[in-house]
Amino acid sequence: MNLREYIRDVPDFPKPGVLFKDITPLLTNPDAFAFAVAELSGHYLTSGVDAIAAAEARGFLFAAPMALQLRKPLIPLRKPGKLPYTTHSFKYDLEYGSAELHVHTDAIPAGSRVLLVDDVLATGGTMAAACRLVEHAGGIVVGCAFLMELAFLNGRAQLVGREVFSLITYT
Amino acid sequence: MNLREYIRDVPDFPKPGVLFKDITPLLTNPDAFAFAVAELSGHYLTSGVDAIAAAEARGFLFAAPMALQLRKPLIPLRKPGKLPYTTHSFKYDLEYGSAELHVHTDAIPAGSRVLLVDDVLATGGTMAAACRLVEHAGGIVVGCAFLMELAFLNGRAQLVGREVFSLITYT
Repeated sequence: MNLREYIRDVPDFPKPGVLFKDITPLLTNPDAFAFAVAELSGHYLTSGVDAIAAAEARGFLFAAPMALQLRKPLIPLRKPGKLPYTTHSFKYDLEYGSAELHVHTDAIPAGSRVLLVDDVLATGGTMAAACRLVEHAGGIVVGCAFLMELAFLNGRAQLVGREVFSLITYT
Repeated sequence: MNLREYIRDVPDFPKPGVLFKDITPLLTNPDAFAFAVAELSGHYLTSGVDAIAAAEARGFLFAAPMALQLRKPLIPLRKPGKLPYTTHSFKYDLEYGSAELHVHTDAIPAGSRVLLVDDVLATGGTMAAACRLVEHAGGIVVGCAFLMELAFLNGRAQLVGREVFSLITYT
């Protein structure tokens, strides 16, 4: 199945001159969505993954079915003020301003092998922060899985030394 | 399986005096998470559901695996500025201020039977808005499914005449 057929180009979003890769056509095609989740999960079947973690919101769309498919715990990484229990947090810089990800302090048993999942690898800032947060919380990052990668933004430079896997690469 | 065992009480969140029902223990227990998704999906097997819709972010956690299980399109309802294509929107009041949900204008074919999903039915404001948005976009609301319902907040009053299904009810 060619998953690119289910990614739509939307010009000038979020700002003029940017060609946004919209994943909603994939989400509304059950065969394509199921194929993508199965391919992502399949890549990590023998990686000794103990848990799946993902940052809200779009990361949840892939991480939740992957966690069920791999039958592993799902660990949500959330923005400030969203997780009710005590949290670890990691602050990181964005193009404009900064952002912060949180995880519950009891979410990751020490030494757990955690697979991180998101829909898109763009500049890599969020995924790099997610990796650091998981490590700060006591986990080991097994890999970083994406539906698609915008290689021209060179997000892998933020993930040097980490296993990175994408189903679709735009160069 | 008693799903209540996987919901944790966190006192004084998001503000003093509130006892928050935390679903993260359920997410980190694959058997409990799988059971909840199967029970929710199972309730709608014969309802003629054409699509599953959910508001970010926690709604995605249940709607994504349900969409795959029922093999139906997944329609994300998102906050302003998140969906790249043209959208319908619906603004609604919250306890403090207001919020707005968007859906792509081409997400819901006219007359589609849409199942709405969220983790928690509290005051019902978000789900009522999601229903109105789906109807505004041309869909028919088949039901509103929740992992849990905080019945003492009387959210069903916002959903009068709609099919409402919850796996856990706190009275």
